[in-house]
Amino acid sequence: MPDPSPDPLVGLVMGSQSDWPTMSEAGRILDELGVPYEARIVSAHRTPDRLWSYGTEAAGRGLRAIVAGAGGAAHLPGMLASKTIVPVIGVPIETRALGGIDSLYSIVQMPRGFPVATMAIGQAGAINAGLMAAAICATADPALAARLEAWRAALAASIPEVPRDA
Amino acid sequence: MPDPSPDPLVGLVMGSQSDWPTMSEAGRILDELGVPYEARIVSAHRTPDRLWSYGTEAAGRGLRAIVAGAGGAAHLPGMLASKTIVPVIGVPIETRALGGIDSLYSIVQMPRGFPVATMAIGQAGAINAGLMAAAICATADPALAARLEAWRAALAASIPEVPRDA
Amino acid sequence: MPDPSPDPLVGLVMGSQSDWPTMSEAGRILDELGVPYEARIVSAHRTPDRLWSYGTEAAGRGLRAIVAGAGGAAHLPGMLASKTIVPVIGVPIETRALGGIDSLYSIVQMPRGFPVATMAIGQAGAINAGLMAAAICATADPALAARLEAWRAALAASIPEVPRDA
Amino acid sequence: MPDPSPDPLVGLVMGSQSDWPTMSEAGRILDELGVPYEARIVSAHRTPDRLWSYGTEAAGRGLRAIVAGAGGAAHLPGMLASKTIVPVIGVPIETRALGGIDSLYSIVQMPRGFPVATMAIGQAGAINAGLMAAAICATADPALAARLEAWRAALAASIPEVPRDA
Amino acid sequence: MPDPSPDPLVGLVMGSQSDWPTMSEAGRILDELGVPYEARIVSAHRTPDRLWSYGTEAAGRGLRAIVAGAGGAAHLPGMLASKTIVPVIGVPIETRALGGIDSLYSIVQMPRGFPVATMAIGQAGAINAGLMAAAICATADPALAARLEAWRAALAASIPEVPRDA
Amino acid sequence: MPDPSPDPLVGLVMGSQSDWPTMSEAGRILDELGVPYEARIVSAHRTPDRLWSYGTEAAGRGLRAIVAGAGGAAHLPGMLASKTIVPVIGVPIETRALGGIDSLYSIVQMPRGFPVATMAIGQAGAINAGLMAAAICATADPALAARLEAWRAALAASIPEVPRDA
Amino acid sequence: MPDPSPDPLVGLVMGSQSDWPTMSEAGRILDELGVPYEARIVSAHRTPDRLWSYGTEAAGRGLRAIVAGAGGAAHLPGMLASKTIVPVIGVPIETRALGGIDSLYSIVQMPRGFPVATMAIGQAGAINAGLMAAAICATADPALAARLEAWRAALAASIPEVPRDA
Amino acid sequence: MPDPSPDPLVGLVMGSQSDWPTMSEAGRILDELGVPYEARIVSAHRTPDRLWSYGTEAAGRGLRAIVAGAGGAAHLPGMLASKTIVPVIGVPIETRALGGIDSLYSIVQMPRGFPVATMAIGQAGAINAGLMAAAICATADPALAARLEAWRAALAASIPEVPRDA
Repeated sequence: MPDPSPDPLVGLVMGSQSDWPTMSEAGRILDELGVPYEARIVSAHRTPDRLWSYGTEAAGRGLRAIVAGAGGAAHLPGMLASKTIVPVIGVPIETRALGGIDSLYSIVQMPRGFPVATMAIGQAGAINAGLMAAAICATADPALAARLEAWRAALAASIPEVPRDA
Repeated sequence: MPDPSPDPLVGLVMGSQSDWPTMSEAGRILDELGVPYEARIVSAHRTPDRLWSYGTEAAGRGLRAIVAGAGGAAHLPGMLASKTIVPVIGVPIETRALGGIDSLYSIVQMPRGFPVATMAIGQAGAINAGLMAAAICATADPALAARLEAWRAALAASIPEVPRDA
Repeated sequence: MPDPSPDPLVGLVMGSQSDWPTMSEAGRILDELGVPYEARIVSAHRTPDRLWSYGTEAAGRGLRAIVAGAGGAAHLPGMLASKTIVPVIGVPIETRALGGIDSLYSIVQMPRGFPVATMAIGQAGAINAGLMAAAICATADPALAARLEAWRAALAASIPEVPRDA
Repeated sequence: MPDPSPDPLVGLVMGSQSDWPTMSEAGRILDELGVPYEARIVSAHRTPDRLWSYGTEAAGRGLRAIVAGAGGAAHLPGMLASKTIVPVIGVPIETRALGGIDSLYSIVQMPRGFPVATMAIGQAGAINAGLMAAAICATADPALAARLEAWRAALAASIPEVPRDA
Repeated sequence: MPDPSPDPLVGLVMGSQSDWPTMSEAGRILDELGVPYEARIVSAHRTPDRLWSYGTEAAGRGLRAIVAGAGGAAHLPGMLASKTIVPVIGVPIETRALGGIDSLYSIVQMPRGFPVATMAIGQAGAINAGLMAAAICATADPALAARLEAWRAALAASIPEVPRDA
Repeated sequence: MPDPSPDPLVGLVMGSQSDWPTMSEAGRILDELGVPYEARIVSAHRTPDRLWSYGTEAAGRGLRAIVAGAGGAAHLPGMLASKTIVPVIGVPIETRALGGIDSLYSIVQMPRGFPVATMAIGQAGAINAGLMAAAICATADPALAARLEAWRAALAASIPEVPRDA
Repeated sequence: MPDPSPDPLVGLVMGSQSDWPTMSEAGRILDELGVPYEARIVSAHRTPDRLWSYGTEAAGRGLRAIVAGAGGAAHLPGMLASKTIVPVIGVPIETRALGGIDSLYSIVQMPRGFPVATMAIGQAGAINAGLMAAAICATADPALAARLEAWRAALAASIPEVPRDA
Repeated sequence: MPDPSPDPLVGLVMGSQSDWPTMSEAGRILDELGVPYEARIVSAHRTPDRLWSYGTEAAGRGLRAIVAGAGGAAHLPGMLASKTIVPVIGVPIETRALGGIDSLYSIVQMPRGFPVATMAIGQAGAINAGLMAAAICATADPALAARLEAWRAALAASIPEVPRDA
């Protein structure tokens, strides 16, 4: 169980327990960058009242960004975006029949007025959601900005120039 | 402005005024079949509280079916389905960039627990949503069932055997 | 072999034995909710006459809804809808080459006059088809409506607030 | 109105009058090649009994091929194929929202046992359906085969070597 | 190795040895129906001259139909159709990256003048290609037509009415 | 020509002049919300060095967000994201042949390490990009947050309850 | 009519006269860069023998590249590639029903052994095909390389820094 | 580790080590044909400066072609094409969620001015990229042209006429 921070800056929410193996990658990044976060299961359809409260209270609780992952007819990110002006970052979860195209369209094609910052389908999207949440927090936190720059420099430094045979 | 019935059996809701030219076709069918209905604009994102009330009160108000049309990241039908057990019939509105595939996936790919009876994209879908709403009402209303059978018979009778040149 | 009810309210039909692992999920839901149903193999192409009789007799036999699953060029739900005004709920079976997009389009894109209440591709769609059939029956059966509300409440109650690590 | 041949070899059927501008191209080709045909509106959903009779009687009436055009959830070609062993040639009609992909999948993805000889979407498909019907008849009619060869030679001869500026 | 018939009525050609597990299903059907055929590897790109000869000689050799399977940028069926008026039946082979949509579009979207009778993607398509080839031959062979009718009747008779649990 | 702000908080960049009719909608929103911005043409392919400088200098110049629109093989948003940790918001421009699916995939499917906050295809996406940029700035600017809340309230208040006939 | 060069380095071929408005853009680029070319209509299906000769003779006639445009089941580029080792550059022509996805897949998804250098769908693809043909010729022609560099520099220089209002 | 040639004619670059199993197939072909090449990891996003140098120096270092493979939002081939007039050949790497359609669109849909010679998705594309690079070099190297012709002849000779049973 992820250790909830006392004063989270980022809310990491997902539609179901089965999304956690993907979404925990966002948490891992936030841990690496020292950004306090909380992880919650908030199902748009099964627990709509929980969604309502989460969205309504997000700004007042000091959240700077919400990372929301969902699959299929993925309504969680967009519905949260309708209840708060805190930036919502959406992660389309991969799906069995359609690969996650359904998740992607349900998240990215938001009508005017309610943006969701949509990431790539699946694990890469979850990792990038963590980075985007950190980057938003970093716009007002120079120390975090420096840690983010360092994270990137380390990533670049890890790339060899010549491919290795298996 | 559609004339609201005093005791509607069907709620016809849509995300925006711009959906009315499509969705009014459902109303026209319900008028033809003598099924009382009301038409409402309920935007999942712009008026989420209206959606909440509409879903919560639907069963108690005596609605037997809800026809919900929306386009793009179309969350209205599914979110209504999360708030009521009244059958929700979804109409994917055609969209400019993706033709309505985004609307279709956002409506049809609902997770287990929350069915939305999805119709074809666009006007044919709206017409069929009216018919499906009537068919649901007709399961407990033999007179309506007879009118629906007659409507169909008239449709069949209107088909010529040989195509006419333009 | 599913135990046929003496007076089924729901007909659960499918194009082939290979659809049963998916479609039996609809049956399981109907069992849980106490809705009597029957299960039949009715292939649109291999047994068209069986389809004809099934559609023609559905209303007279007291069926309140038909759940029809089929894959590929899935003609079963739509052809049943052309033979009866009993609401037809379509389940697109997942397919090997196209993931079930072929099944989805063949079921959902019905022409005006003949609605098919289309569900999600695959198992979630089958479960939701069972729920939609129950919801239609519940429009005239308050006791069933109460059982359906309870089923949903139990589903909501089963969702933890915080994800568990694997 | 197309002039019905007394002893048609090819049945040209379509789901609706609105398909005739496309499907009449098949008729024009059959006229050019001297293949007698008849044109009929046979809607899978609106006139299922007409479809039933047409399929059942096709072989006995001496038809060598059936050209069937339909759009959206296009069930006409496949359902005819389930009622007759006369070769059925399917023409996917272009559709507004999906361009005809829905028509194509509904026609081509037939299950084992019931082939439909599927052509391209739209007008080119209708023309080619006429040619395919003629080619099937030509397998047992050397004079028609010769006319078909000549038609092709004329087509090839009409192609200039160098493009002309507009 | 398939036993070549001395006087084949159907040519079964494919782009590569790797297509044989799929395409042999067409051969199995032709064997069951007693239609003599030959099987050949004819690669549009690797052996274009073989394709040229095969197409040019098909009619003269007495072939009544050609079944051609290919995958990806599948040019074999269409190029054969450009060299002969013998009906060409195309089988889109399933592909790794795109599931066979590439094969389907490359085969079905033929320009006016050169029809290819396109079947479903993969094994069902191969089986149906065998049946379509037989149906074409049957238009001038009443005994074969009777065998084809019997094959279908046996298929229909094999379908149980009620699904069996696994 | 848009009036450049002396101290822009948001950089509004696009691949070509032809993107301005879409992207100017983002500028209009930022004007309404009182967020200073600059508009620039930065083509990933035609002016790669301009892209390089823009990305490298963005953080130092005080930009809190970059809105980048591009179409087709849309590399501008992702390449900017590789040069700066300032949050990049991507707008997929609608394209003629593919509707903008090419733009969407090229922008959203970023590899781990380099998030782009992707918006809907076309004009709605541009409007939402302006709102997302404002929301990011608002995480550290309570007055802007209040203006954003007011903007949303006005949007909600503008929605009538009942659709009007045309 | 394009003026044929006496010693063309590039062959510009297309499946039909209707492709010329698109393909002439490739010719315009080659004219601008001073690369001699010829334009020919070579239909894979209507004039297969012309395709055969063109491919077979290309290398001997001194062609350094072939630009081939075709639409739908676009077999021309790939079939040329099977007859020559001269680099073939493919241009997918936009199509009415599928936008050119069919053309793209038919051209790009070539099997191992026979590459086709595929460009974007439509006019941009034709322009780029001209540039790619010039770039191939330029690998052995420093003067042409210099003209190509100059062409690019002029393109970059034409891009304003700030968008202009309409 | 691939043995770098002292004077490579072809640069084989890829976005990540994980692309090497696919891209090494291009190297194997270049080895077979005796074309000197080098293999490098150049990530558009993680090592943009490496990309910049590689593109800028390619022509001066004597490269005749660059083979670039990348997956997802695949910006490497197009960004290299913006920095050099050396022909760039793009290989779309297969992706988990979308099969490589995202890679294909990101590579092939380049705007006017910057062609990328796009190959098939995955391994066949990598092999063909090697062949295309060789074919470009062969336009000015008759001995290599002869080796390429021989390679093809051997490929054709390896195709049996009749399929073998497994």
